[in-house]
Amino acid sequence: MTPERITIGSGETESVVWLGQGLLGQAGSRLISPSGRFLLVSSKAAGEPVGALRAALSGRLLLDLEVEDSEETKTLDSVRAIADRALAAGVRRDDAFVAAGGGVVTDLVGFAAAILLRGVAWNAVPTTVAGMADAAIGGKTGVDHPLGKNLLGAFHPPRSVLVDPAAAATLSDRDYRSGLVEACKAAWIRDAELSRRVEQLLDPVLARDEAALLEIVSGAVRIKADVVSSDPREGGERRLLNFGHTLGHAFEAAGGHRALRHGEAVAWGIAAAAAISRARAALSAADSGRVLAVLGRLGPFAEPVRLSDDLRPLLARDKKSTARGIAGVLLERIGHARVEESIPEEEWLAAAAEATIP
Amino acid sequence: MTPERITIGSGETESVVWLGQGLLGQAGSRLISPSGRFLLVSSKAAGEPVGALRAALSGRLLLDLEVEDSEETKTLDSVRAIADRALAAGVRRDDAFVAAGGGVVTDLVGFAAAILLRGVAWNAVPTTVAGMADAAIGGKTGVDHPLGKNLLGAFHPPRSVLVDPAAAATLSDRDYRSGLVEACKAAWIRDAELSRRVEQLLDPVLARDEAALLEIVSGAVRIKADVVSSDPREGGERRLLNFGHTLGHAFEAAGGHRALRHGEAVAWGIAAAAAISRARAALSAADSGRVLAVLGRLGPFAEPVRLSDDLRPLLARDKKSTARGIAGVLLERIGHARVEESIPEEEWLAAAAEATIP
Repeated sequence: MTPERITIGSGETESVVWLGQGLLGQAGSRLISPSGRFLLVSSKAAGEPVGALRAALSGRLLLDLEVEDSEETKTLDSVRAIADRALAAGVRRDDAFVAAGGGVVTDLVGFAAAILLRGVAWNAVPTTVAGMADAAIGGKTGVDHPLGKNLLGAFHPPRSVLVDPAAAATLSDRDYRSGLVEACKAAWIRDAELSRRVEQLLDPVLARDEAALLEIVSGAVRIKADVVSSDPREGGERRLLNFGHTLGHAFEAAGGHRALRHGEAVAWGIAAAAAISRARAALSAADSGRVLAVLGRLGPFAEPVRLSDDLRPLLARDKKSTARGIAGVLLERIGHARVEESIPEEEWLAAAAEATIP
Repeated sequence: MTPERITIGSGETESVVWLGQGLLGQAGSRLISPSGRFLLVSSKAAGEPVGALRAALSGRLLLDLEVEDSEETKTLDSVRAIADRALAAGVRRDDAFVAAGGGVVTDLVGFAAAILLRGVAWNAVPTTVAGMADAAIGGKTGVDHPLGKNLLGAFHPPRSVLVDPAAAATLSDRDYRSGLVEACKAAWIRDAELSRRVEQLLDPVLARDEAALLEIVSGAVRIKADVVSSDPREGGERRLLNFGHTLGHAFEAAGGHRALRHGEAVAWGIAAAAAISRARAALSAADSGRVLAVLGRLGPFAEPVRLSDDLRPLLARDKKSTARGIAGVLLERIGHARVEESIPEEEWLAAAAEATIP
């Protein structure tokens, strides 16, 4: 089967995303390194797909390093550890990293690549649904700081991204389902037709049908590629990708980044944003119902912390917060979203308290 | 007096360099912050010029932090400390840093700005001659690593650079003279006319005449701006700026980055490269003599470590080292240099052993 090829950006910062079944075995020809040498940094949890990658890159690995794929790993110290190992191995400017794992690993390795020798190339091989549909796409890299997530980082797009649905085969059901939330989000903000396909394909996708998963992921990647190409540094349209993330980030932080997966927190954030969209953006009851129904089929999700006193300080920390309120992404109808600049904090908190997923 | 304005690059990465006497007092209108707020990080050693800056930015400082201006400070931990303080102060994406100090401070703060919130703006106010003529110009930022200098970093040009010769008034004679080496280097690789002016103006420059210093620095900045604009990421012409730096970096490292100032090490590196240029690039005895005579007037410089056994491992570490030799910049005549890709290590070591400055 011929893989699908999607390009993002152009020139020095061009990323090529390859999507297809069986791509892991073709890593040797699809991943890019100017020198031909690779530094592999992979998730300990990823297992089999990393084995396939290692075999495909055999004889060309300058470094083969495993890291924990958990939010606690996403620190400046981990970047330093990767840089130490790469420099000790003799990394040169024309070598390239390969990050194989979930969003934590691709964010971390992409950032290490961004600052090592003032920037070396890297490639991403996402092994989670969230990584394939979202985290590994678009060039944002970074690490967390005690004061918040992703506060240190760089825009440094991977040269090549390999999306092979087989890489998600060993994912737990919880990780698999929560990862799909970001794919649905992409459809809802930009693509009515894909939103319809998600509803049609959700049963086989949830039954782990790889072709069905690939169709949904590929639709989400096309949307993200399109949005990111037109707005690489999040000045405008790229902000739409934050649908569900204003409260999502607060829910995630309120759970200490442990109680909820990112996708689960975003699901609750989308449910709340749908309610605000009903009031402020004339989202119809029918469209709101369709969004919630899909979230219901992806769930049930663990309950978030909903108390205003817990969420208020976390919301205030939002990068888009000003004295007049907090910017949010609202859905006008399925397939079309817009940014509203100043939604009062109390409105967010009320929506958080009342959000339901059927 | 109207200040001189030199722009480097364009669009998102445009830098504007302002050069003139009395500019420190105009910092409020010349430095750029999208939000109007600044985070000042300054060298403890800089003294008076920082006071002038502080006064000019009064009421707009979100942070006012002093750091040591020594090579030991140029670490990832210092970047983290700056990021911690900036985040605790509530830095936003539209705020901007001001780095006031020598090359260590501008490299360090520029790098912190590059990775904080995936990149905030910054401005440079160099307070050393080396900073004005070289370090603060061109967008290279970064920190050292136990395995080498500047191994972690980013290309992140400052929005605005203020060059006021008064900022160098309190420099020690040693720092002042060694800083001039980089300005002379710029002239020799690209500008025969400026090389001539350096010879004519060196006495008043050494007597601390600010107008004379400004003329030389301004010529050096024009050259660097020109080279960097045509080759921002050092693929080609920018490599010419490394004239004297192949052995210079080795001399510096052999002295533990303490025995010699960067400019002093580069002066010895230029003396050695001039000898290699005589043999390999047909540099005339007259031009070589003129280069050495200027270095002699800037000196005397402390003796470098010249032993091949000490220098060999440091040279091998050079980023431009390959099995066939080490790339170097050679002077064909005053005002014109070229890169030679593979000069055998033994030739470098012999030149290091024999380099003399009259």
